[in-house]
Amino acid sequence: MSEPRASRRSLQVALGERSYPIHIGTGLLGDPAWLAPYLAGRQVMVVTNETVAPHYLARLKQGLPGDAEVRELVLPDGEATKTLASVGRIWDALLEAGFNRRCTLIALGGGVIGDMVGFAAACYQRGVAFIQVPTTLLSQVDSSVGGKTGVNHPLGKNMIGAFWQPRAVLIDTDTLQTLPAKELSAGLAEVIKYGLIRDAEFLAWLESEMAALRALEPQALAWAIERSCQLKAEVVAADETEQGVRALLNLGHTFGHAIEAHQGYGKWLHGEAVGTGMLMAAELSQRLGWLSRADVERTAAIIAAAGLPLTAPADMGVEDFLARMRLDKKNVDARLRLVLLEALGRAVIHDETPPPLLEALLVAFPRR
Amino acid sequence: MSEPRASRRSLQVALGERSYPIHIGTGLLGDPAWLAPYLAGRQVMVVTNETVAPHYLARLKQGLPGDAEVRELVLPDGEATKTLASVGRIWDALLEAGFNRRCTLIALGGGVIGDMVGFAAACYQRGVAFIQVPTTLLSQVDSSVGGKTGVNHPLGKNMIGAFWQPRAVLIDTDTLQTLPAKELSAGLAEVIKYGLIRDAEFLAWLESEMAALRALEPQALAWAIERSCQLKAEVVAADETEQGVRALLNLGHTFGHAIEAHQGYGKWLHGEAVGTGMLMAAELSQRLGWLSRADVERTAAIIAAAGLPLTAPADMGVEDFLARMRLDKKNVDARLRLVLLEALGRAVIHDETPPPLLEALLVAFPRR
Repeated sequence: MSEPRASRRSLQVALGERSYPIHIGTGLLGDPAWLAPYLAGRQVMVVTNETVAPHYLARLKQGLPGDAEVRELVLPDGEATKTLASVGRIWDALLEAGFNRRCTLIALGGGVIGDMVGFAAACYQRGVAFIQVPTTLLSQVDSSVGGKTGVNHPLGKNMIGAFWQPRAVLIDTDTLQTLPAKELSAGLAEVIKYGLIRDAEFLAWLESEMAALRALEPQALAWAIERSCQLKAEVVAADETEQGVRALLNLGHTFGHAIEAHQGYGKWLHGEAVGTGMLMAAELSQRLGWLSRADVERTAAIIAAAGLPLTAPADMGVEDFLARMRLDKKNVDARLRLVLLEALGRAVIHDETPPPLLEALLVAFPRR
Repeated sequence: MSEPRASRRSLQVALGERSYPIHIGTGLLGDPAWLAPYLAGRQVMVVTNETVAPHYLARLKQGLPGDAEVRELVLPDGEATKTLASVGRIWDALLEAGFNRRCTLIALGGGVIGDMVGFAAACYQRGVAFIQVPTTLLSQVDSSVGGKTGVNHPLGKNMIGAFWQPRAVLIDTDTLQTLPAKELSAGLAEVIKYGLIRDAEFLAWLESEMAALRALEPQALAWAIERSCQLKAEVVAADETEQGVRALLNLGHTFGHAIEAHQGYGKWLHGEAVGTGMLMAAELSQRLGWLSRADVERTAAIIAAAGLPLTAPADMGVEDFLARMRLDKKNVDARLRLVLLEALGRAVIHDETPPPLLEALLVAFPRR
């Protein structure tokens, strides 16, 4: 731990001609070596939000080449900003700057910024370069891989969007120093998810290192992020446009989205809802006879250790869950499709859950 | 010519796993054989405009399977409709209908409808199926191939969009019976363009068959459309996302877009502006010493024979052209890039036109 560079890691997301690197470490922001290789031309627009800008915008700009024509756009923070209107502001700014199709967009912020800026890049002049600089743990382990971009619609989350890959992802773990503890926990929900769906050994490592992660120990963070990105990249490479196995990444999300939507987006953090949702998926998997009671207890314990809730909202009835879950994008025609656990470290897509079993879980699951 | 089925033709646009067929002929609309194979599921939304709907919407719906869940959306006609707000109406309608990612959008209309519906499909739940049913000659020979979708922005035409391929294109040449003569001429501009950029033999065929085409003779139409689509497909297959040779398809468009933008979109038809723009490109090619005076006269003659204008707007000065042309998407950084003719049937991308030569052309080109 005496050598900070030991906490620098890189991996390549293999997607043919759309392959790109993810660089992870401390001190990446502001170092000119990291951004310049990925710029498409001299025109650069940095898009960030009002929370992140005071901490990191100036530092990021120090990492841009001296001859770059740099514009910046600072949007309000929060999920409520993730609208077509905000993306419209990015397009307006690009056109007002006279930026052409060789420009580069840089997304500096969390998942909302990354999703919006990626979508803006996907559709500006039918597609321009963009670089992700995620500053929350959730976006570092989730949005870095997969090319999903988009915005919410009043009738549904992420309903408008595109698949669009970044040129590179720069993850400076120093940016987690200013992240509220609640948001760190929300990010850890997704990290735990990768263990649960695909890697029992990583899950065990997380159980032993959870305290180090919550204390922002750089080497632990770098490995947790790298392994999460690797696991996600393996799934995405097999299924870039989400026709099959990629749905496994939605463990906990069908329940979680129902909670988020019912509470109104932004009340629960996405990762908090996913944490509870994963526990619900584990409980249902036990009711199907796949997990043991001990497996479910272990799942609950690591979710709790990450600082995440183990209970659903008190005011959410069975029908509130079911109505939201029927709108899930994974469903094919009228069939409810869930991601469940055959074992810890092995998730499956399942569309034959007997409705009474699901309803019994929704009745029994604790509320608070 | 006694057998109408002889005027049915099909070609395949080869784009790997995104390959699709174009079917051309009379009597395709309303025949269930043509749409059903390309639907992704039972949910179908037909989007058309107020001009086309009374003529062809009912007939198209007869060609849909009996168990399809069909919605329709009729938008106002015209280039002014080609906005993000209109695409927003399509997304609203899809979400209000509860359509999932296995739905299919059908674009019934001209280029505006095709571009908007294609873009709506590209970004609805990050991409759903769509079928093009183009009803104008321009859209039949232009939008059928290339996957370009998008909308206009107050600061520029087609500035927001995506590359997104249809599942199939159905071209029923019967729909040209209700097309105003002026719009038929505008479509012929693009047909002539394919001859000029890539196929001198086709150009000669067009010179001899122009009267038959303007009289809507089915066999002549079917061949003109098929050959145009073939030529465009050859170019697009070599360069799907417009990094290089695809720019050749913009012959006449840099000048033409300047005319359209200066007059206000919709005053000149796109094809009319391209017709004049191609003559300007030919004149400039002659000033560069590439075309003979006879070549330019031949170009002018076929443009005139198609019923297209040979003069630029009276109120458009040299600087009006230059200012608009500098915004062209083909330009790389500050360099003006034009498509010019080395010979009739052979276009080149050229970014070294001496500015005084271009200005001399812009001064000399006739106005009216």
